[in-house]
Amino acid sequence: MEALGQGWFSEINDLWPGISLSLQVTKILHQEKSAYQDILVLETKSHGRVLVLDGIIQCTEKDEFSYQEMIAFLPLCSHPDPKNVLIVGGGDGGVAREVVKHPGVQTITQVEIDASVLAVSKRYLSFMSVGLEHPKVTLKVDDGFEFMKQHTGQFDIIITDSSDPVGPAECLFHESYFSLMKTALKPGGIVCSQAGTVWANLDHVAQTLRHCRSTFPVASYGVATVPTYPTGQIGFVLGSLNKETNFKEPVKVFQESELDLMNMKYYNDQVHRASFVLPRFAEKAMNASRNH
Amino acid sequence: MEALGQGWFSEINDLWPGISLSLQVTKILHQEKSAYQDILVLETKSHGRVLVLDGIIQCTEKDEFSYQEMIAFLPLCSHPDPKNVLIVGGGDGGVAREVVKHPGVQTITQVEIDASVLAVSKRYLSFMSVGLEHPKVTLKVDDGFEFMKQHTGQFDIIITDSSDPVGPAECLFHESYFSLMKTALKPGGIVCSQAGTVWANLDHVAQTLRHCRSTFPVASYGVATVPTYPTGQIGFVLGSLNKETNFKEPVKVFQESELDLMNMKYYNDQVHRASFVLPRFAEKAMNASRNH
Repeated sequence: MEALGQGWFSEINDLWPGISLSLQVTKILHQEKSAYQDILVLETKSHGRVLVLDGIIQCTEKDEFSYQEMIAFLPLCSHPDPKNVLIVGGGDGGVAREVVKHPGVQTITQVEIDASVLAVSKRYLSFMSVGLEHPKVTLKVDDGFEFMKQHTGQFDIIITDSSDPVGPAECLFHESYFSLMKTALKPGGIVCSQAGTVWANLDHVAQTLRHCRSTFPVASYGVATVPTYPTGQIGFVLGSLNKETNFKEPVKVFQESELDLMNMKYYNDQVHRASFVLPRFAEKAMNASRNH
Repeated sequence: MEALGQGWFSEINDLWPGISLSLQVTKILHQEKSAYQDILVLETKSHGRVLVLDGIIQCTEKDEFSYQEMIAFLPLCSHPDPKNVLIVGGGDGGVAREVVKHPGVQTITQVEIDASVLAVSKRYLSFMSVGLEHPKVTLKVDDGFEFMKQHTGQFDIIITDSSDPVGPAECLFHESYFSLMKTALKPGGIVCSQAGTVWANLDHVAQTLRHCRSTFPVASYGVATVPTYPTGQIGFVLGSLNKETNFKEPVKVFQESELDLMNMKYYNDQVHRASFVLPRFAEKAMNASRNH
């Protein structure tokens, strides 16, 4: 059997036992232990710069666009008038970079708990941190839970761009977090949270969707292809306070010419609709979760 | 940086440099050098049994269903009356296992060049090789090229379940192969070939689609999620002799209750439609290929 030689970073985690993605590293740019997590920035042979938190790949320069576009535009295009957006997490800046592209958005408040992620991103990952510099963005270094407790009824959209449910982000997958987001939303508000993949963690995805469904009158789960995430894709749980919301049918459709100007490489309205079509085994698990 | 210890199989190939998927191996079940390729069968910790040809993962027990269902039912459900099917390659038997599920199919001819793959599959991969035992299936150990030269105008569907375009399968991606398939089809016939992923080999996928377009009046490219393939997905190039074919809209729609009886875990008509929706960057590359 072939084995990897020196100079590869391998992602090993109990969330996906027995399988591991590796990237060939040309340089370790940064390595630190922050107050919250281990932070690693790599220069790789084939995927540009890569951010790793607690041993898990968060984004690579080559394919981060699909995740950022989708976690931003699935909720934005499901809302008729998304003026005020809250981003919880997302310290690299990639989500903010996408949200500012929506012409209706007036303010973006971003709450990241780990100041070190912000600093590392600004220094090494400018292709994402550019989002943090936009004049519409107000950045807070704070705990998303605490921040929302003090800001009720203020946001049209809340995007939770978290790491996986181990470590500092674990609480962002609990029912109490969905309840808290509900109080921070304006009427008709929409939430969108990173929610893992049905191919590795089907039960966990179904549980997160259940939490969302028990809190919001409308909830759904859509996916995006991200080759460097485990199983090559990641999903998002969306919830809406507006009973009329149909996440599968965007209320705002951008024309292809507009999307070109917005430098969108992944998202359009067709991709939006298709992202909610799940394999039969996953669709069944999601529907079964309605009955719990 | 974490490194993998002993007991992992790592897939390393110049088709996707700098990135590698690894599976934790509990037992090497079989290893041989056939007349055509290196054959390896592994028992893994998390993905069941795995077939590896020339160092590339062909299928794992855990997720092979999505590939097999899609390469079979995308063409089958795009044809109004698919009676006679030819499978080129597919020696593991997984595609035949799916094709026999379609009630309209009367005969399946399968041409596999490497008798060793057939033997290994029958011995170690019975969850797939069961397809080879079906009474509708006639198995030939032969070169697909040679076989088709002698069998013109005989098939409604030709499915090419090949390995990647390095080694014995390279010729199956050339324009001459599409021309040959055309002569082996009956009027209105349809072809479907494994065609790689836009995330790792965009130019190659676009080229294969160009070959298909230059041979068939209708051609398209759809994808399936397969977590253990490079980038987590794989695509199929489809071509039809019937100008009215719209691959994005299946002419045969199976009901969910029928699909349950057929033990389909991935495919339904919604998945069929969604599989042809590509990310913007890929859609643009596919359309650009029309002009070459």
